[in-house]
Amino acid sequence: MTLSIEDRTARFTLAQEIAREAGALALGYFERLSTLAVEFKHGGQDVVSIADREVEVLIRARIAEAFPEDGVLGEEDGLVEGKSGVLWVVDPIDGTSPFLNGLSHWCVSIAVAFAGEAEIGVIYAPVSDEFFAGARGLGAFLNGAPIAVAPTRAIEDGLLGFGSNHRIPPEDVGRFVTVLLEAGGMFYRNGSGALMLAYVACGRLVGYYEQHINSWDCLAGLCLIKEAGGWHNDFLAGEGMLEGNRIAGGAPQMKAGLVALLEKAGASTETIA
Amino acid sequence: MTLSIEDRTARFTLAQEIAREAGALALGYFERLSTLAVEFKHGGQDVVSIADREVEVLIRARIAEAFPEDGVLGEEDGLVEGKSGVLWVVDPIDGTSPFLNGLSHWCVSIAVAFAGEAEIGVIYAPVSDEFFAGARGLGAFLNGAPIAVAPTRAIEDGLLGFGSNHRIPPEDVGRFVTVLLEAGGMFYRNGSGALMLAYVACGRLVGYYEQHINSWDCLAGLCLIKEAGGWHNDFLAGEGMLEGNRIAGGAPQMKAGLVALLEKAGASTETIA
Repeated sequence: MTLSIEDRTARFTLAQEIAREAGALALGYFERLSTLAVEFKHGGQDVVSIADREVEVLIRARIAEAFPEDGVLGEEDGLVEGKSGVLWVVDPIDGTSPFLNGLSHWCVSIAVAFAGEAEIGVIYAPVSDEFFAGARGLGAFLNGAPIAVAPTRAIEDGLLGFGSNHRIPPEDVGRFVTVLLEAGGMFYRNGSGALMLAYVACGRLVGYYEQHINSWDCLAGLCLIKEAGGWHNDFLAGEGMLEGNRIAGGAPQMKAGLVALLEKAGASTETIA
Repeated sequence: MTLSIEDRTARFTLAQEIAREAGALALGYFERLSTLAVEFKHGGQDVVSIADREVEVLIRARIAEAFPEDGVLGEEDGLVEGKSGVLWVVDPIDGTSPFLNGLSHWCVSIAVAFAGEAEIGVIYAPVSDEFFAGARGLGAFLNGAPIAVAPTRAIEDGLLGFGSNHRIPPEDVGRFVTVLLEAGGMFYRNGSGALMLAYVACGRLVGYYEQHINSWDCLAGLCLIKEAGGWHNDFLAGEGMLEGNRIAGGAPQMKAGLVALLEKAGASTETIA
C-alpha cells in the first residue's frame, strides 16, 4: 500500500514550503544567538529550546491547516495521531548542539511516512542555503539539481558520517572508531544526523552509521538516500518509529565493508546485513 | 626576541592579502570539482593535488616578491630556508579530504613564525567566506570583528574538535573517544585541523586535541587561539616544526579536564600538563 501520486505530490509540495519557512524562522534565532554571544553563555540552552519549540509549533500549524487528518511525530511535542494513515515526522532543528555553539551544521528535517515507508524527505540547512528534497519515485535533489550517492568510493577511500550520543555505551563508540580506522576508513561528525544523511545522498559522505538514532533525526535522510540510489537498513523495524533504532546507509558498494566492520567491532548487524 | 611591530604588521597585511588570493584560486578548483561530479570519481585525487600545488606555488611567489629573505615551509614543497629568521608556515588547502569530497570544510592556512613563536595566523575558509586573522599582541578577528574563546564551557558541556589521521594507532583514537564520552564530552571532526582550531578561537568549539599534527596544519590556528584568550600546548617543542607533534588547545577552563582525559586514556601529557 502506498500513497497515491496526487496525495504524495501535494504533501511533497507542502513539506518543501514548510521547510523553507521553518528554516527562515530558525535562522533568525541563530543570527541573534551569534550577535548576542556574551548573553549566550548563561542562557544558551533555554534560547535554543525556545527556537526548537517555536519552529515545531509553526510546522505543526502548517500541516494541520492543509491536512488536518494527518498525524505528526515531532521531537519536541511527541506524537499526535491522525486518521489518514499519513504520519509527518519532524525535527524542527536537527543539530541542536551545533546550533547552540554557533556552528553552521543544523537543519530542519521533515519526513512523511505511510504504511511503514518514508515517502517524502526534505532537509533544509539555512546557513549554507542547501535545500535537499526527495520523494519516493520522484528522485532526490539539492537546490533543484538531481543528486546521487558516491559512485565508487567505499569505506577505505571515503568519509563515513558517524553519529554519537550519550544513549550509546562510550566503549561501543570507541571500538567502532578503532575498527573503522584499522580498515583504512575515516569518520566525520558535524553534530547533525539529518544533515550527514543528506551529505550521503549527494555523495559527499560514503555512508552513515549510528548505533541509535531517533526517527525524526533520520527518516527524511533515509528517503533522500534511497531516492539518490543508495541503500539503508530497515530502520523502522520493530518500534523504530517511536523508540529509535540502529541506522546504517550509504552508497551500495560500501555496504559489505560496513557489515564487516560491525562484525569486527562485535556490534549487532541485525536489520543491516 | 620578537619581530618588530613594523616587521610583524607588514607581514600580517601581506598574509591576509595572500590568503584571500589563494582562497579564490582554490575555490575555483572546488567549484569545478562540484560541477564535474561525474568525472571526479576517477581523477579526484589528481585534481586535488593540482589544486594544492598551484595554490602553494601562488603563495610562495607572493612571499618571495615581498620578502625574498624569509623562509617558507609548505605542505607540498617542504622547507626553503631564509636569511631573515622569519619562517612562513603554509598549508595551501587544509582539509584535502573534505575538499575532495565536496564538503565545505577546507581552508587556506598561513602562519608566520619567528624565534620559535607563531607571530601571525591567517585562516580563510572560502566556501563560507569566513576570514580569521590574528597577530601577536594585535588580537584575533573573524571577518574583521574581534573573537574570543568560549567563556564558560568545558569538556562536559562543549564540543571538542578532534583530529584523527592514519599516523596515529587506531586504538589510541578509539580509546580517547571512549574516555571523552565517559566524561560527558562530545567530539566534532570536519576534516580540517586548521579550521577546527579557528572554531576554537571564536568559541564554537571548546577545544581541540590531536595526537599528531603537522606544523602547517596548526600553527596559524594556535596563534589565533592565543590571541583570542585561549591556551595551547608547547607544540613547537623538540622537532615540532619539521616533524609535527601532539596538539592541544582551547578555552582556559577546559585544560584541566583535557589533561584528566589524557591521563585516563593512558596518553602522554608531555608538552601539555
